Amino acid sequence: MTTLQECRARDAQDPLRSLRDQFALPEGVIYLDGNSLGPLPKAAPERIARAVAEEWGQGLIRSWNTAGWYELPRRLGDRIAAFIGAGAGEVVATDSTSVNLFKVLSAALTIMAADAPSRRVVISERTNFPTDLYIAEALCRERGFALRLVEAEEIPSALNGDSAVLMLTHVNYRTGAMHDMAAVTAQAHAAGALTVWDLAHSAGAVLVDLTAANADFAIGCGYKYLNGGPGAPAFAWVHPRHADRFWQPLAGWWSHAAPFQFTSDYRPAAGIARYLCGTQPILSMTALECGLDTVAAAEPFGGMAALRHKSLALTDLFILLAEERCAGHGLALVTPREHHRRGSQVGFTRQEGAYAIMQALIARGVIGDFRAGPPDILRFGFTPLYIGYEDVWHAVEHLAAVLASEEWRRPEFSAAQAVT
Amino acid sequence: MTTLQECRARDAQDPLRSLRDQFALPEGVIYLDGNSLGPLPKAAPERIARAVAEEWGQGLIRSWNTAGWYELPRRLGDRIAAFIGAGAGEVVATDSTSVNLFKVLSAALTIMAADAPSRRVVISERTNFPTDLYIAEALCRERGFALRLVEAEEIPSALNGDSAVLMLTHVNYRTGAMHDMAAVTAQAHAAGALTVWDLAHSAGAVLVDLTAANADFAIGCGYKYLNGGPGAPAFAWVHPRHADRFWQPLAGWWSHAAPFQFTSDYRPAAGIARYLCGTQPILSMTALECGLDTVAAAEPFGGMAALRHKSLALTDLFILLAEERCAGHGLALVTPREHHRRGSQVGFTRQEGAYAIMQALIARGVIGDFRAGPPDILRFGFTPLYIGYEDVWHAVEHLAAVLASEEWRRPEFSAAQAVT
Repeated sequence: MTTLQECRARDAQDPLRSLRDQFALPEGVIYLDGNSLGPLPKAAPERIARAVAEEWGQGLIRSWNTAGWYELPRRLGDRIAAFIGAGAGEVVATDSTSVNLFKVLSAALTIMAADAPSRRVVISERTNFPTDLYIAEALCRERGFALRLVEAEEIPSALNGDSAVLMLTHVNYRTGAMHDMAAVTAQAHAAGALTVWDLAHSAGAVLVDLTAANADFAIGCGYKYLNGGPGAPAFAWVHPRHADRFWQPLAGWWSHAAPFQFTSDYRPAAGIARYLCGTQPILSMTALECGLDTVAAAEPFGGMAALRHKSLALTDLFILLAEERCAGHGLALVTPREHHRRGSQVGFTRQEGAYAIMQALIARGVIGDFRAGPPDILRFGFTPLYIGYEDVWHAVEHLAAVLASEEWRRPEFSAAQAVT
Repeated sequence: MTTLQECRARDAQDPLRSLRDQFALPEGVIYLDGNSLGPLPKAAPERIARAVAEEWGQGLIRSWNTAGWYELPRRLGDRIAAFIGAGAGEVVATDSTSVNLFKVLSAALTIMAADAPSRRVVISERTNFPTDLYIAEALCRERGFALRLVEAEEIPSALNGDSAVLMLTHVNYRTGAMHDMAAVTAQAHAAGALTVWDLAHSAGAVLVDLTAANADFAIGCGYKYLNGGPGAPAFAWVHPRHADRFWQPLAGWWSHAAPFQFTSDYRPAAGIARYLCGTQPILSMTALECGLDTVAAAEPFGGMAALRHKSLALTDLFILLAEERCAGHGLALVTPREHHRRGSQVGFTRQEGAYAIMQALIARGVIGDFRAGPPDILRFGFTPLYIGYEDVWHAVEHLAAVLASEEWRRPEFSAAQAVT
């Protein structure tokens, strides 16, 4: 049996341990929901206050130049590129994941309509994050494509001569199951389809190499593992072989080749800049940079590879301890045990009470989240930047106590489900 | 001749004078660029700091519920509605103006394609703000519509049996010329077309009554006269008669009827909520609310009507003084003299040196902006919340001095043009 002492010893030996000091984590909280909203970097309050008081307050309109506001989407894009195996000048930080998905899926459909007009099917996973499916549904309807939803294991057989685009989220938001991006992309390409990858639960969490995987399009989220703050701008990546081929329909002035010439006719910028649209929320963008700093701080310790190594150790430990200490309480693991198929989160189902169990845990300071089913899922995200082995120990102790005591049956824990 | 003493007397008698205290304006600056970026409300630093340290830092993911983050787009939309003659529940604050224009123009085209499929022309003004034209150009191309650009005076004759949508910016970003929204909307409707109004230079600046004008769609900007901070979220309004008719293609999860049921199929929310898309930048949204507070603070003094009254007095004075004191220096007014045709800004052209003249003014602390032509324009925005009559006096004195001394010919003022 693993002991608390062993967990403490692992923390003491953890080369990434000091990275936790970058975050202002509330007292008494074990935060296992960084896959929904990353915590506050300690540097962020002062940096944002400077953007507010100095850049906005004193610099006013001049700050578009003097404070570098105008360059932020490209500059932060370059920083994100380093975490996902993309090149400089290939990523922009902008808009929301939903809006960016619209842009890249629209581009992918336009390319396929031109190159292979008989291919009219977009394939995705039935358990993909709903906003991806909604955007795809609306866009397919508009462009005369069909959206076909399949289970993960059905993807290879679903790819055929009708397939235009395979649109997947790399790490499943519910189960934490991870696709082999290179292998699945190769399957899609072999079948003649393009790939669109949503990296919402991947960027900053697992190893992603878009270039090596020869992927076509990708988008991702700034406020989960990148710790960019609530609703932080998202990002978009387009392989350079596609970037200049077509306009994307959200052709706002920031995507223009010369936006400040104010010409009445549209001429798209070269490369990824044409995936910009309108003016970006600078204060939220400033917070995003503080989040990116927290991930970049892992570089001297081995960067994403070291983070991934620790992430797997944390999720291994959580699975091990939860199955040991909560045995007989009806939890069933939904997250793959194989490392190469697991993201940075762990989910358990339970026939009854999953929502109330999570509320009881949150009341104890263990913040994970609940994802309604069927099956209902208790979801725990492990961000190696700030979660330690002792945290895992205590989280499982609380989970075991909530289950053993049945305190989750208290009425206050089954109140109306909250919005997130 | 108007004197400095008279200007001071008008400030002393101005019932709106105290509203200026809401803003943290830099020492030595006369800020005539609030139509590009409104200044910092004094309340914003503390409010944003609380959103960062408490809501994000301490509340973490729980703040989506406990801090009301999830309701912000609708709650702030209701507040904006009060400034533009819209009803509660008819406006959302979200995304950028370009993205929102895409949504509403897309809806308008969808409606017309269904109701009057032979109408295939979108009419707009050649001098409309370019991002509006780019979005329209891309969308028209995609949907098989033609975009026809005309001069303002040609609009009535351009409206005919081919017209699907008339898309205009209410107040021209270069000249400050204002359309009669009710009359133009009536002309469009009489010709069988829908109207899309961009309120970027109107909301918080001039009287807008979307309901009385019987307009169809409108969008607008949060960071100009609404003082919402750099890149603040924009807004969208759809007349209730249209709101439920069609999906808009940016059908992200925030537009779903039940987003937290995470169903795989899309079902649009009723009303304006279906014009939401993805997760919003909460810190920038928080700043926007501080900006809305500054406009709402005019309510006890007569609200938008009182602001409009003072705005016209300020622009009247600026035109009068500039024409008196800069006579013979080649300035030509491009802004309409008639009150009912003027927004809250004044533009002058000059054959030579407009860019350098503005740089020289900025170096003296008079911040307006330059809009490249032809013709090149010196643009001055007057926000009655914080600009006074004495400010106008001094601004003109600086302009006269820059012109008389020819200091604008100094090499540093004709350096490479900056981005905004």
